Amino acid sequence: MNCMEAMREIELKGHIIDSFLLPKVFDKVMDMNGEFEIIEFDIGKHKTDTSYARLMIRGKDQEHLDDIIGELHRLGAYVPEAEDVVVEKAPKDKVVPKGFYSTTNHTTYVKIKGEWRQVCDQKMDAMIVIRDKDAICTTLGHVKKGDKVVVGNSGIRVVPPERPRGHTIFEFMGGQVSSERPSQSLIRQIAEEILDVKHNHGKIVIVGGPAIVHTGGQQALAELIRNGYVDALLAGNALAVHDIEYNLYGTSLGMDLNTVELAPEGHKHHIYAISEITRAGSIKDAVKQGKLTGGIMYECVVNDVPYVLAGSIRDDGPLPDVITDAMKAQDLMREQVKDADIVLMMATMLHSIAVGNCLSSSVRTICVDINPATVTKLMDRGTAQAIGIVTDVGTFLPWLAEELAALEKSRKKEVPALKVKSKKR
Amino acid sequence: MNCMEAMREIELKGHIIDSFLLPKVFDKVMDMNGEFEIIEFDIGKHKTDTSYARLMIRGKDQEHLDDIIGELHRLGAYVPEAEDVVVEKAPKDKVVPKGFYSTTNHTTYVKIKGEWRQVCDQKMDAMIVIRDKDAICTTLGHVKKGDKVVVGNSGIRVVPPERPRGHTIFEFMGGQVSSERPSQSLIRQIAEEILDVKHNHGKIVIVGGPAIVHTGGQQALAELIRNGYVDALLAGNALAVHDIEYNLYGTSLGMDLNTVELAPEGHKHHIYAISEITRAGSIKDAVKQGKLTGGIMYECVVNDVPYVLAGSIRDDGPLPDVITDAMKAQDLMREQVKDADIVLMMATMLHSIAVGNCLSSSVRTICVDINPATVTKLMDRGTAQAIGIVTDVGTFLPWLAEELAALEKSRKKEVPALKVKSKKR
Amino acid sequence: MNCMEAMREIELKGHIIDSFLLPKVFDKVMDMNGEFEIIEFDIGKHKTDTSYARLMIRGKDQEHLDDIIGELHRLGAYVPEAEDVVVEKAPKDKVVPKGFYSTTNHTTYVKIKGEWRQVCDQKMDAMIVIRDKDAICTTLGHVKKGDKVVVGNSGIRVVPPERPRGHTIFEFMGGQVSSERPSQSLIRQIAEEILDVKHNHGKIVIVGGPAIVHTGGQQALAELIRNGYVDALLAGNALAVHDIEYNLYGTSLGMDLNTVELAPEGHKHHIYAISEITRAGSIKDAVKQGKLTGGIMYECVVNDVPYVLAGSIRDDGPLPDVITDAMKAQDLMREQVKDADIVLMMATMLHSIAVGNCLSSSVRTICVDINPATVTKLMDRGTAQAIGIVTDVGTFLPWLAEELAALEKSRKKEVPALKVKSKKR
Amino acid sequence: MNCMEAMREIELKGHIIDSFLLPKVFDKVMDMNGEFEIIEFDIGKHKTDTSYARLMIRGKDQEHLDDIIGELHRLGAYVPEAEDVVVEKAPKDKVVPKGFYSTTNHTTYVKIKGEWRQVCDQKMDAMIVIRDKDAICTTLGHVKKGDKVVVGNSGIRVVPPERPRGHTIFEFMGGQVSSERPSQSLIRQIAEEILDVKHNHGKIVIVGGPAIVHTGGQQALAELIRNGYVDALLAGNALAVHDIEYNLYGTSLGMDLNTVELAPEGHKHHIYAISEITRAGSIKDAVKQGKLTGGIMYECVVNDVPYVLAGSIRDDGPLPDVITDAMKAQDLMREQVKDADIVLMMATMLHSIAVGNCLSSSVRTICVDINPATVTKLMDRGTAQAIGIVTDVGTFLPWLAEELAALEKSRKKEVPALKVKSKKR
Repeated sequence: MNCMEAMREIELKGHIIDSFLLPKVFDKVMDMNGEFEIIEFDIGKHKTDTSYARLMIRGKDQEHLDDIIGELHRLGAYVPEAEDVVVEKAPKDKVVPKGFYSTTNHTTYVKIKGEWRQVCDQKMDAMIVIRDKDAICTTLGHVKKGDKVVVGNSGIRVVPPERPRGHTIFEFMGGQVSSERPSQSLIRQIAEEILDVKHNHGKIVIVGGPAIVHTGGQQALAELIRNGYVDALLAGNALAVHDIEYNLYGTSLGMDLNTVELAPEGHKHHIYAISEITRAGSIKDAVKQGKLTGGIMYECVVNDVPYVLAGSIRDDGPLPDVITDAMKAQDLMREQVKDADIVLMMATMLHSIAVGNCLSSSVRTICVDINPATVTKLMDRGTAQAIGIVTDVGTFLPWLAEELAALEKSRKKEVPALKVKSKKR
Repeated sequence: MNCMEAMREIELKGHIIDSFLLPKVFDKVMDMNGEFEIIEFDIGKHKTDTSYARLMIRGKDQEHLDDIIGELHRLGAYVPEAEDVVVEKAPKDKVVPKGFYSTTNHTTYVKIKGEWRQVCDQKMDAMIVIRDKDAICTTLGHVKKGDKVVVGNSGIRVVPPERPRGHTIFEFMGGQVSSERPSQSLIRQIAEEILDVKHNHGKIVIVGGPAIVHTGGQQALAELIRNGYVDALLAGNALAVHDIEYNLYGTSLGMDLNTVELAPEGHKHHIYAISEITRAGSIKDAVKQGKLTGGIMYECVVNDVPYVLAGSIRDDGPLPDVITDAMKAQDLMREQVKDADIVLMMATMLHSIAVGNCLSSSVRTICVDINPATVTKLMDRGTAQAIGIVTDVGTFLPWLAEELAALEKSRKKEVPALKVKSKKR
Repeated sequence: MNCMEAMREIELKGHIIDSFLLPKVFDKVMDMNGEFEIIEFDIGKHKTDTSYARLMIRGKDQEHLDDIIGELHRLGAYVPEAEDVVVEKAPKDKVVPKGFYSTTNHTTYVKIKGEWRQVCDQKMDAMIVIRDKDAICTTLGHVKKGDKVVVGNSGIRVVPPERPRGHTIFEFMGGQVSSERPSQSLIRQIAEEILDVKHNHGKIVIVGGPAIVHTGGQQALAELIRNGYVDALLAGNALAVHDIEYNLYGTSLGMDLNTVELAPEGHKHHIYAISEITRAGSIKDAVKQGKLTGGIMYECVVNDVPYVLAGSIRDDGPLPDVITDAMKAQDLMREQVKDADIVLMMATMLHSIAVGNCLSSSVRTICVDINPATVTKLMDRGTAQAIGIVTDVGTFLPWLAEELAALEKSRKKEVPALKVKSKKR
Repeated sequence: MNCMEAMREIELKGHIIDSFLLPKVFDKVMDMNGEFEIIEFDIGKHKTDTSYARLMIRGKDQEHLDDIIGELHRLGAYVPEAEDVVVEKAPKDKVVPKGFYSTTNHTTYVKIKGEWRQVCDQKMDAMIVIRDKDAICTTLGHVKKGDKVVVGNSGIRVVPPERPRGHTIFEFMGGQVSSERPSQSLIRQIAEEILDVKHNHGKIVIVGGPAIVHTGGQQALAELIRNGYVDALLAGNALAVHDIEYNLYGTSLGMDLNTVELAPEGHKHHIYAISEITRAGSIKDAVKQGKLTGGIMYECVVNDVPYVLAGSIRDDGPLPDVITDAMKAQDLMREQVKDADIVLMMATMLHSIAVGNCLSSSVRTICVDINPATVTKLMDRGTAQAIGIVTDVGTFLPWLAEELAALEKSRKKEVPALKVKSKKR
């Protein structure tokens, strides 16, 4: 060891082999040209046992070592002699102090005055701000001058999700995308997940794009909302406009969804749809006034399902209900997903990635798209827990509605009651 | 007119405006820097009338004029003072004489000894060989030394298909691809087309890829065959192997299609499937011996539906039924499609384009694929009459089977009887 | 003619055959079950001649006739006995009067007090508002209570673009997409177009996505801006952040763009990049303070090239320069493109379609994307004049920069001088 | 332990943590509801050390245990008390004995008469046939009646490739696909790999599709062949026909590759191209007769680079050089790749997957395609070692040629000599 060399002990605890944590740590150290030595190693001999390892990490100087320790941290290693987290004040609104700790989307704990506290509102690429004894995961846009922002890696513990084991779709398809799997079998399994979550009063959030309407899936989605399977809807102006256009005029962007022909003067319908809602005041007003009598947005209104319609530069109109400020829309979306159990994303790359950025890695995330690139990008951008179903949302949604109805009927024979709505909403 | 300039009269007949023939001719002449003059022009005043135009075409010299006339020919123009077709002998097997006439996939007539004869077996990029008074559309591979091959453009008449008008899917979606149309409505319309063809004792050919099995569409396709909707199946080794694997072991490439999990030792199943059929002798033998008792291939065998399994360099095995010689397989496929009324292509780019090459432009062609590029390529390669449905074949096929069953039931109430099989088979 | 039947004369003028206008009109009438009779027909006998047709259109009643006339209007037909446009007042902000005229993106004239006036700011799916003698194409969001909005079809003339004829890329690739064309030859032709426009002091607008930086095209784009080929840049937060991250830290989303490896602590760089610009005040301030010394955004600042960074719900930060309100961003984008000669869209579906919505069909539009769906959607959404180049923007941009340099050198030998910047900016 | 329970010891050796072997074994046992106990565990304390583990595996009965052991085997575990491999005779040509051992594409050893022998011609989904003391990896199609086929898992050792560590493209991109990486940097690294292999007299095999010609990459590929970078070319009829068409007529499927316009009578060129080669006798004959004077196929002929042109059902013609029997073509392809060091696949899904099936996992495999699905499918089908470059082959090939030229020049300054051709050919 030359005089520049620096070393530090780290610990690994839990399912460190099963979750691939141990080999990932070895890998990372070697990739970064550091060295490691195993000080203690106690492997669980059965699958329910947890394991423990203590390793000495060496870097060629302190900076090198810090870089390595920083990366190991993100993987889930932690420094045993953990002191309290170190904070520094934000020098200005929306400006981070040098060396800020950038969050992962995994559950994270910080040591504040000797106590480990879980970080609230976990999401990726954010900062941790300490307020009294609370640690809040905060996006750059919400950092205020003087906020105590966590820096470095001390006093922080990341707990990556255990690889799920069992026989649900999230287990055998974790982090995979494929257009070559049996579609109907997958849909049945998603239906089971949804039903389980609803029986446990969990929260299901739908993220959807306008192709839901174009491809003819809107009636099935409206049915899902009506039957209590949806606790929040995150979408844009287009989904709402097309849904309303269909319900007012039977067309979507002028195309008759039953005959698949263009309706005469149909190209005006989407502007009329926006205009009529504006005339009424809002979607809710249009429902109250009896102007809008069916569809996705109608069911949201009458079933008290909150929705966030985020504006975009592509929008016509937009509808009066649309939040045109991107940051305000982001905040409202974040609010809806923070206690979600399942997020079902359908036919929208923009909204899926935007919502993915706001999710903890513990939220079960399903992304349905006919374009495999949507799912790949979602995962590449960090939402690694998502499972991708490459299919046509226009056939997916009707099958899902059928499967849910069939499953619920067959379950009712066994257990009585349901139709209890989630309390979280 | 300088002394080099050359000119020639052409005629246009039929629905020359409605089919865009007239403007296409004008366009082409201008694009090629030729000139035209309208000698006679009689436009139909109602939609049922046909029109007539006579034009003088000028080129800067004879070669230039011939080039222009050659292109106009392909569009459907013809030379009024038409002499008999001119032929030249093929100098060698598989070698064309200079200036050979290259066919389109449109219905074509040739003038032989003063009489107009329709060319048999019309397909694109082939030659016309004259045998006595018969004109046969022949691919390069089948040209024999001494064959009388048509050269130049004289005595040839091309009749492009009229743009269909009405309210079937082929009319409003002619030459279009879109992933943003109402899937279930489209499927219903395809079901109606299929039923109409079957009521008229027409021929329906299925072209399919292995994803039909992977995505769980195999039972629906088997049902279609069992119910008499399929008159021929064109596929490869993989579709048959996966279908047989599923019927012998419940898996497709080792994946259990119901639980969507990998079966233990499942990776061996496809080799076992091939091996078992080889042991039996052939697929037909395996059915006879009671080894294969269900699925796509089984239904083909018991319902006497002919199939062509074309070999490819990707194949494992292959099955004893597979035609490993590409040219022999091509000939057999061509035989099956030449009197087809509908060709339904599903989830295979290779076979779809290969079959497309063999089709006359009058065959109603539907291409179903989750990848829009398959449909785009099919059309770019000349099968312009195809309509593209961008959807998941694993949900498409079950819906199609449901729609067919529902439609047939509702039609039976009106007209009695059906279940008459096509006579063409 | 029964007593309900209604009829009306229309006229077609100009290149009505060459532009396919005549057959489209016939087609549309037949598709809608109307009837037509040709009253007068005078076809140009040479390619420079214009043609004229007068047709009597019949519908089964007045409403049916109006529907037909409405559609023919959009194609470019007009009603000869044209009266002034008819207007009705908007009953409320952002609410259209019944029967409003919905614009195409083609050049449009309206007859106001007996005079034909061209509509300003032409774009699709908007309204025409009359202010004194001016007709302004206005989006729904900008319609104010009491605005005189054009209704019906009287007094309106649409002039669809002639099909370009000649040998530039816009002519032979009009409305086409293909991934199977010679990439370098296409790039050379785009370079020629760009150079021609710059020599004529025209305006070139770039619309770009973050993949320009990820794929390593940022230096070439910066060079284009430095050399005066770019008059405005329309993008989002991500492009600017990645460009700035690369210029401050050599990475893009943490990946070293030279070694293609992840930099240690690189995942923090994009937050640092935003934070540093916020600390400086804005991108311009960061340039002034010497903090940002190269790249796309830097070149925009030092070369006075205006940029619009539109916010989206996916954004981190965002940068202080980002317009977070979608409608405000849309207005600013519209301002930049309204006098554009060429719009070059690269690697962004959202921005391409958003900008496409704001363009007149006379703007030469090039869409470069590795995903053919981007180009297809752009055209499906109405930007039919776009040509699509399916290629990798990371190799496209460097080749384009090389071709421009080579071409300009070879042209300089012939004509002297250039480097005159567009005056439009 | 109940009386049915079965147990067996296995061993893991080598880089069992670094290669994720240990956690994969634990995972698999738990997934299959087996149990494990660690008997001995000796972990290397430095990165160069190898590790050793001995585990007791328990299943609920012998069959269950055998299933588990079978799966662990494929991962790389082996049974310490290894007996000789067990063989059974093939009952018939192309028929496997029950319980046959299905190969992975990893290096494999078998114990024959007490000695470990490496299996020859390793590839996936094949059988091991023992001939004397040789073990040959044999595809089903080549199994002969009476062949001694390995069954079960005894006496077999699989050695999965170590995860490469270092700074070449194969290390940091192992098993990844992305369209969002810096294209030029990636190309530079591929050029370095190619140059390294050539300096070591290694073998480089090109697998290519016709889009190489359509997109204008043919001259660059011809240059690569001319400069000695290519040791074998695997392609189909289409690549060769388009290349020859371009060299005879300047077009590809009738399109002039320089002006990007359709040539008059150009649609006949590809048939002429085939016909002319047939007239000459073969491609080699056409070169000898001075008819073919440039391009990819020409360079193969004059530089003695072997090529395999595999037939397909899409083919026109085909050329006389095409192997129309799929199984024969497969054998010839297999022959060419069995000692390859680098396989560079470009713009062909069919050939890439077909060749991938024939490769050992130790062959460095690069797949270049504009469609990410090609790369994803290649990996899903088992060629997990491939790295995917999502780019346009029409810009990729020219850059690669430029980079190779630049690199070779800069290297020559350091080391003298090269232009030594591979001896393997």
